[in-house]
Amino acid sequence: MAYRETSRVRERKQATRQAILNNALRMLNESGFSGLQMAALARQCQLATGTLYRYFSSKEALCTAVFEYATDIEIGRVAAQLQQPQLTAPEHIAAALTTFAKRALRAPIAAWALIAEPVEPAVNHARLRYREQYATLFSRAIDDGIAQQSLPPQNSTLSSHALVGAIAEALIGPLAQQQPQHLNQTIAAAVQFCLQAITAKPYPTIFPDQEC
Amino acid sequence: MAYRETSRVRERKQATRQAILNNALRMLNESGFSGLQMAALARQCQLATGTLYRYFSSKEALCTAVFEYATDIEIGRVAAQLQQPQLTAPEHIAAALTTFAKRALRAPIAAWALIAEPVEPAVNHARLRYREQYATLFSRAIDDGIAQQSLPPQNSTLSSHALVGAIAEALIGPLAQQQPQHLNQTIAAAVQFCLQAITAKPYPTIFPDQEC
Repeated sequence: MAYRETSRVRERKQATRQAILNNALRMLNESGFSGLQMAALARQCQLATGTLYRYFSSKEALCTAVFEYATDIEIGRVAAQLQQPQLTAPEHIAAALTTFAKRALRAPIAAWALIAEPVEPAVNHARLRYREQYATLFSRAIDDGIAQQSLPPQNSTLSSHALVGAIAEALIGPLAQQQPQHLNQTIAAAVQFCLQAITAKPYPTIFPDQEC
Repeated sequence: MAYRETSRVRERKQATRQAILNNALRMLNESGFSGLQMAALARQCQLATGTLYRYFSSKEALCTAVFEYATDIEIGRVAAQLQQPQLTAPEHIAAALTTFAKRALRAPIAAWALIAEPVEPAVNHARLRYREQYATLFSRAIDDGIAQQSLPPQNSTLSSHALVGAIAEALIGPLAQQQPQHLNQTIAAAVQFCLQAITAKPYPTIFPDQEC
């Protein structure tokens, strides 16, 4: 009789996979991709290293999965800000960028890992796909703003990619050397840069006190 | 008697190294880092593959050297635009961004390779160092602009990194699918985004007809 995976076995495997990802994400928060070691992760998960390799066939496969897991969470938060009711397009975009920036600053090592840490090509490919997803979200918001005249006419594809590049780069370079008490100003300056770019007028550097 | 390299031998080695880099750069222009193969490059240079490895010990070492060689040229062009006499800071920055964009569009495969193509970590590390160099150039120009009141007060470190992120990201995503007749509009839109971000006022999408 051929072996068939019961639904209980599938569920257990799924739970183990999730536990591995959660532990890996914790390690990413502490020391980036360079600190994510298969043997140490297996110990954290109370698994044999060989068992870990049955779930993720290589370190590159694990890193890609952790990258996607972590970035899905970040994109979900940004998307939620873009869907808040009763905001104009520039308000949506400011809220989304603020959330992105605040979350990046709360977990700067993970942010560096997700945005810019030198990684294997497979993770780099995933990065490019996800940057495209962020750009698509912003592009829709910009199109809404142009239609509702809360934003001036512009090439929304270009502006959305430029927004993604600007916010990502702004949060890895200067932030690395930032004092905690200056983080709010950094967020405000990054959001100001982006909003001025798409609205073509001064944007106040007031720090919006929002949940993220 | 110990072997000592004569200056003639040194010169010849230097010339061979330069010929390798020139050929590698031509291959990069045609097919990016993924198309840069040691054996094919050796053939192009009329060298044995083993000889090529005496100049560059691995593909990663070669790619890093080609990256640095190509990016030094690009940074030189951007720096030259920032030093033109009798321009204001925003004019300097617009000229530098236009040059960066025009050169990227003339060689889109090389631009993709230099800016975003998934590569080995060593090349990625070089990319981060060079992005920092670009940011330093822009940061100085922004500081000049603030001092001369041609730019509003702003965090020049943050703005300069955001500029680098914005222009780089704008030129790889949308440009990949661009028709040649739209390239000038793309450049103008990218420069407009960046200038509005740092000046907080509308910037015309006129395409400056400059050498680069």
